[in-house]
Amino acid sequence: MQKVKKRVYEFLHEVSSSDRHVRAFRVFIITLIFLNVFAVILETVESLSLQYVIPFKVFDAFSVFVFTVEYLLRLWTCTTDEKFRGTLKGRIRFAVTPFALVDLIAILPFYLPMFLPLDLRFIRALRLFRLLRILKMGRYSESLRTLGNVLKEEKEELLVTVFTVLVLLVVASSLMYFVENSAQPKVFSSIPATMWWGVATLTTVGYGDMYPVTPLGRFLGAIIALLGIGAIAIPAGILTNGFAKEILKKRGKSGMCPYCGKEIEKTSK
Amino acid sequence: MQKVKKRVYEFLHEVSSSDRHVRAFRVFIITLIFLNVFAVILETVESLSLQYVIPFKVFDAFSVFVFTVEYLLRLWTCTTDEKFRGTLKGRIRFAVTPFALVDLIAILPFYLPMFLPLDLRFIRALRLFRLLRILKMGRYSESLRTLGNVLKEEKEELLVTVFTVLVLLVVASSLMYFVENSAQPKVFSSIPATMWWGVATLTTVGYGDMYPVTPLGRFLGAIIALLGIGAIAIPAGILTNGFAKEILKKRGKSGMCPYCGKEIEKTSK
Amino acid sequence: MQKVKKRVYEFLHEVSSSDRHVRAFRVFIITLIFLNVFAVILETVESLSLQYVIPFKVFDAFSVFVFTVEYLLRLWTCTTDEKFRGTLKGRIRFAVTPFALVDLIAILPFYLPMFLPLDLRFIRALRLFRLLRILKMGRYSESLRTLGNVLKEEKEELLVTVFTVLVLLVVASSLMYFVENSAQPKVFSSIPATMWWGVATLTTVGYGDMYPVTPLGRFLGAIIALLGIGAIAIPAGILTNGFAKEILKKRGKSGMCPYCGKEIEKTSK
Amino acid sequence: MQKVKKRVYEFLHEVSSSDRHVRAFRVFIITLIFLNVFAVILETVESLSLQYVIPFKVFDAFSVFVFTVEYLLRLWTCTTDEKFRGTLKGRIRFAVTPFALVDLIAILPFYLPMFLPLDLRFIRALRLFRLLRILKMGRYSESLRTLGNVLKEEKEELLVTVFTVLVLLVVASSLMYFVENSAQPKVFSSIPATMWWGVATLTTVGYGDMYPVTPLGRFLGAIIALLGIGAIAIPAGILTNGFAKEILKKRGKSGMCPYCGKEIEKTSK
Repeated sequence: MQKVKKRVYEFLHEVSSSDRHVRAFRVFIITLIFLNVFAVILETVESLSLQYVIPFKVFDAFSVFVFTVEYLLRLWTCTTDEKFRGTLKGRIRFAVTPFALVDLIAILPFYLPMFLPLDLRFIRALRLFRLLRILKMGRYSESLRTLGNVLKEEKEELLVTVFTVLVLLVVASSLMYFVENSAQPKVFSSIPATMWWGVATLTTVGYGDMYPVTPLGRFLGAIIALLGIGAIAIPAGILTNGFAKEILKKRGKSGMCPYCGKEIEKTSK
Repeated sequence: MQKVKKRVYEFLHEVSSSDRHVRAFRVFIITLIFLNVFAVILETVESLSLQYVIPFKVFDAFSVFVFTVEYLLRLWTCTTDEKFRGTLKGRIRFAVTPFALVDLIAILPFYLPMFLPLDLRFIRALRLFRLLRILKMGRYSESLRTLGNVLKEEKEELLVTVFTVLVLLVVASSLMYFVENSAQPKVFSSIPATMWWGVATLTTVGYGDMYPVTPLGRFLGAIIALLGIGAIAIPAGILTNGFAKEILKKRGKSGMCPYCGKEIEKTSK
Repeated sequence: MQKVKKRVYEFLHEVSSSDRHVRAFRVFIITLIFLNVFAVILETVESLSLQYVIPFKVFDAFSVFVFTVEYLLRLWTCTTDEKFRGTLKGRIRFAVTPFALVDLIAILPFYLPMFLPLDLRFIRALRLFRLLRILKMGRYSESLRTLGNVLKEEKEELLVTVFTVLVLLVVASSLMYFVENSAQPKVFSSIPATMWWGVATLTTVGYGDMYPVTPLGRFLGAIIALLGIGAIAIPAGILTNGFAKEILKKRGKSGMCPYCGKEIEKTSK
Repeated sequence: MQKVKKRVYEFLHEVSSSDRHVRAFRVFIITLIFLNVFAVILETVESLSLQYVIPFKVFDAFSVFVFTVEYLLRLWTCTTDEKFRGTLKGRIRFAVTPFALVDLIAILPFYLPMFLPLDLRFIRALRLFRLLRILKMGRYSESLRTLGNVLKEEKEELLVTVFTVLVLLVVASSLMYFVENSAQPKVFSSIPATMWWGVATLTTVGYGDMYPVTPLGRFLGAIIALLGIGAIAIPAGILTNGFAKEILKKRGKSGMCPYCGKEIEKTSK
């Protein structure tokens, strides 16, 4: 029994294992996750969801079955890990880790309507919750982990940026509201409404559903649009630096400087 | 008395003090500033401002009371600082520092209508002036100071960029005016009017309220749009470099080069 | 004969030969390729294609003649290369190299209708296939090869980005579909339809044919637009780094670091 | 006389002279150039040009007078420079330098109608030619020279980019034309017409006057828009690198590496 448990643990937890069977299982789970996301997306196309009611249902039931078994096996084998030792206490500690919660959320929308009387609107929302199964990818995806590390490392600088952009957004939208409100009272009706224009301009998306028409408003809008370039430039640079550093780290600290091609001596400390 | 004054000074001026009470006070002021900005923004939503007339008024009165007391205490205690020594002269010198002026502007809109007969339009403008209370954040915000330093350091390069973009804008808009004016005399009515198109194109916002329709105009517009990429690229690079350097400085000059991971020896000179 | 074959081989294969005649031939082929692309583009303008039926036909026949002769000569001379030795086997191995296939595809659309009975719609498609002649440029263009190298080198990082952007796109579009579907059931009709909005927003193109109108949808849209800046920032940085490195390599490894101006010693592996 | 000539030469040619009078003269010329550009722009606003006919005329005559005197004095004094020695030959050699040609073009539009019988349309075009006076700034502007150097240094890389973007534009527009033409024959009427959409998408301007409506067209459009991010990213990086290097050079090669803060030893060679 203990041997089976160890083997199951290996299948479920050792993401980078090179065992042929473990790898095949990993590919199967990842494929199933992607097919699930794809199915949820396609189900929202009415013509498809009406025509293929049964296949969609069957596939969903099959996926939930696999994910439920996976979840239960994880709960059973988690005690193999030093961190989650303890028949009950260890399992509870495991159940509240982010990855275990994601696994639970991935299957819950299927079981909930069986136990609770839910109105139709909520059930429809639950179906979209199935999209959260994409989060199960986090365990397998090296890239999402890299991105997470970058965001964590550059947290401080990104917060500076977010704060600066928010202040800029508030000031820009307030000024524009004051200038354009009398000319277009329906469009620039309040500062929160004008902030939609502000975001579209600062990010240079520019849908064209709102734009100033008065000369003063256009002058102001031009300045804000030009400042918006900075709003793009700063996080761009920060993330770029962050990625460069993170990739450097992964390549082994003895790599090559991405810029000068010099060998990098690992700094003590 | 002198001891009270010192303690008050500490509360108001020592931004990075780690005293528990000082920190609590700082959090209180910052929260109040943010709530004020939020209130001004929400007040412009007519449905909210009509429904909650009293709460908005009470909150504004309370804020002005706090900020007034804060301002007066600052005026009283500023003489503790070496720079502002002198009962009257020191206080006047303090009152004209940027931060003190911002504090004054933050409360003035409330008192002005009491002393001066103002027309309604001006009073409405004064209400938006309350947004300037966000500038009080400057004293507490590390990030705005970092941004300020970056802009100061890269001043020369940014001026080059601004100048280049302005020349490009003038030349692009003039050419486009000449090409499109006869086809769309109402839209591309003059060079200043065409500059609104120029800004929307060079910043890649592209609202879609103005665009060339003649083949020659579109050919010209395509070239200008492609040049606009450069207009984004250059300030982006400059600000990125600036931020990287500034953050490096803050981390202590003995940090790691963000690119080659080499230990940085502080250069003499 | 063998001498002629060698000379022809030189003309066709030695891209960087400095022989005056070889160079003239290279310029001739490149010019012909560009004129072909130009002709295909212009032929889609109805007024032009109706007026100049004969010149377009003559030019196409002439180009196909040149490209056919070029292809046959390449097939004949390829055995000069060590890699394709062998009268038949070597030539077959040569015929399936990417460049040889491109050369074949460039002329095939002309000959196909002669041998196969094709409907008109397919013939029209074949005419656009002539655009693929631009791929013949790959052999001569240094720059396309540089770009190819960059993409190959940064493959791993770019995949991370593409994956992240796709996940972001799926999540953003699903949320927006759920929020806006009831307000604009025709516009945000399904998740795949909403993804068109998602791409336009994340890339900051913002056509303005779809945009949220509900307050919640606009709030969500604003956050997605701001995240879109990151979607641009990350590949931008990766490609920039890649290009810098590639160009550095080409300049001879003993160049100057583009950033610190230090001489770069070639690292032993 | 020779002394006067030398003094005049100093006024006109020594851009970085610190003599008080020379500097005042420089400021005067630069101001006059900017006012000229401003006047040409404002003249296109009909309401202004009709109301202030005389002031605009007087200012133009005054400017042309100053620029003419400046041009003639330059011609007279240029022989002071070693390069333009020779009473007639030297002056001719000077007259065909770019800066001298720009000075001539700046005044010619004023004199041409006096000598040649021109139709009204051409005269109107000539008035816009006065905008070229902005090019006179080139002599005084440090920043435009920096930009020029960057573009010259990175010429090779920028050409790669331009070529890549053009190929991408041609391929993207051709595919989109083929996909969308049957659904929107008026909008996507030919490949050149579709290229307007291509530029708006690849540069992420997105006016919204043209966009695909078929599912296949939107899928293709989404991929092209995502590739467009690369089209922005690459020149951005190249220009950034170029600027960083150029600014480094100007600061004296013994400056600090913009990234690692290390002192830069000038490399021999």
